[in-house]
Amino acid sequence: MSTAYDPDNIFAKILRGEIPAHTVYEDEDTLAFMDVMPQAEGHTLVIPKTPSRGLLDADPVVLARLIAVAQRVGRAVTAAFEADGLTVFQYNEAAGGQTVFHLHVHLVPRREGVPLKRHEGGMADNAVLADHAERIRAALKAG
Amino acid sequence: MSTAYDPDNIFAKILRGEIPAHTVYEDEDTLAFMDVMPQAEGHTLVIPKTPSRGLLDADPVVLARLIAVAQRVGRAVTAAFEADGLTVFQYNEAAGGQTVFHLHVHLVPRREGVPLKRHEGGMADNAVLADHAERIRAALKAG
Repeated sequence: MSTAYDPDNIFAKILRGEIPAHTVYEDEDTLAFMDVMPQAEGHTLVIPKTPSRGLLDADPVVLARLIAVAQRVGRAVTAAFEADGLTVFQYNEAAGGQTVFHLHVHLVPRREGVPLKRHEGGMADNAVLADHAERIRAALKAG
Repeated sequence: MSTAYDPDNIFAKILRGEIPAHTVYEDEDTLAFMDVMPQAEGHTLVIPKTPSRGLLDADPVVLARLIAVAQRVGRAVTAAFEADGLTVFQYNEAAGGQTVFHLHVHLVPRREGVPLKRHEGGMADNAVLADHAERIRAALKAG
């Protein structure tokens, strides 16, 4: 199933600063930013800086850092959007739902009775994403 | 959003040996077993032995071990079912899709063109689950 890592994927371009993103958190190993096609308000992605295609080809040390940041950002996303729950997706290969071939974790804050939107449901407004990113950064500082 | 851990949840009962499970992997910290309501052939759950309700209240050390085992079992599940992809779900609270309130990671091997079944689509046959568990254990040994 595994194929090679493509350094021209869109998240690699974000990591190189070639494409902008609404960043909510960054450290030496990890970046978290708003999904531009959110399935719910506050839908955030967490990615490692080390290249890997998905879960199965990642270094376990990278995974440990990634999941710790996913928890920290997940708490902030939940607080910022007063969510009742948090749905986490991690897709591997096209058959598994993956569309960008750099390992990433989806954090989707959920409200009671609000179904998920389709991921390809459209690009969110930039100003809205900027506001949402600011809310999550504020929650990270407060947490 | 967070509420207390309920030690009478079904995964806690599995960990205590009060309810049987089709185990594929076990170590000091982690247990992996077949989901009895599989969304695809080979749908496996990975849980920490340390009680936590979900991602947000877990110890990061527990998470690091959990994700490492999820990777290892994920590779075996993918190999055992000759999958084209792997979909990973992790649900937190009812609004986030959670039905058993002990932290767990869903590993769902995927084939091109085969949609996911609903999680509540029914209990799988015990003999089928036993066979699937055996295939995954064999893949773990081979891997």
